[in-house]
Amino acid sequence: MSPAFDKVHQLLKQLPGLGHRSAERVAMHLIVEKPERLEPLCSALREAAEKLHRCPVTGNLTEGEFCEIYADIARRKEIVCVVETVPDLMAIERSGAYRGVYHVLHGKLSPLHGVGPNDLNFMPLATRIENGEVNELILALSNDIEGEATCHYIQDELLAGRDDISISRIGFGLPSGGGIVFADAATLRNALEGRKKF
Amino acid sequence: MSPAFDKVHQLLKQLPGLGHRSAERVAMHLIVEKPERLEPLCSALREAAEKLHRCPVTGNLTEGEFCEIYADIARRKEIVCVVETVPDLMAIERSGAYRGVYHVLHGKLSPLHGVGPNDLNFMPLATRIENGEVNELILALSNDIEGEATCHYIQDELLAGRDDISISRIGFGLPSGGGIVFADAATLRNALEGRKKF
Repeated sequence: MSPAFDKVHQLLKQLPGLGHRSAERVAMHLIVEKPERLEPLCSALREAAEKLHRCPVTGNLTEGEFCEIYADIARRKEIVCVVETVPDLMAIERSGAYRGVYHVLHGKLSPLHGVGPNDLNFMPLATRIENGEVNELILALSNDIEGEATCHYIQDELLAGRDDISISRIGFGLPSGGGIVFADAATLRNALEGRKKF
Repeated sequence: MSPAFDKVHQLLKQLPGLGHRSAERVAMHLIVEKPERLEPLCSALREAAEKLHRCPVTGNLTEGEFCEIYADIARRKEIVCVVETVPDLMAIERSGAYRGVYHVLHGKLSPLHGVGPNDLNFMPLATRIENGEVNELILALSNDIEGEATCHYIQDELLAGRDDISISRIGFGLPSGGGIVFADAATLRNALEGRKKF
């Protein structure tokens, strides 16, 4: 339509979750409908990018030295939930079901996409384990081959010979509110394998 | 998680089509994963907001004096397709099925949301009609009560006594590739009413 609009559209389409039309909608919104929202958004993004950094222990994002959850004395430091991304961590926090701390890997092992152990945030987790800070590890990684491979790597490399640390992987199965008829075959297989005595 | 992150998240959630989680994902992407994309996006948005304005004739966005489509001598100026928004116009352009020009209302009549005739871009369309520039009007407005009301307003107020101008509304019915079983009742009613001799 116009080179300036097309450039915005192109850049917005690169953002995760935005397709051709949703990028078009957001562009129209910020350029024409509510241009007064443009500067506050850009300066908030810039400020956040400057202030936020990874917690050196947990990999979570923080404005302070350590992340809020790790710094919270009420959280059980010896229980560590390993997640791929910060939004995963936020989702678990929203569930309100967890009182331990976290470790964020910032990805999962994926030889196909060239992601090896050195590309992920394993080191601080290895240090916590070596220092005897951990006695339970909960793996909350994706239910796919790459999540599986990452779980095995942690078990084989980081926990080798450490029988004092219990390790578990979160349960897979039917989502809450999900009817059998809507579940795909892989989910149903997981749900059947993960069945519990009733 | 952090005040700076929360502020970004809050502002992103106000954008059309972004919910809680998709805003979280975009924020993470621009703040942490690909911060190098932040400045190009902000400056592209700023540049577009500065350069783009409404075409005084059609209401479409343009960097020049008139919009590209209206300025194109190959387009038939006497056929005008009336749409609610610029993305609607873009969608029709993508279909490749239309060789006339457009008029963008920038909304639809909605007494419930306080949108009256003075809030929409009717004036330049009335001028085009009065000047005898139009001999066919195609109404490509939403298939809902507000779209319907807007069609009636155009017919009653802008085209009153103008039998020389033909007016039509785009067809409603089953979407391309859509099976009967997936269509809702209102769509099926429209499809039945809009049936054509085969």
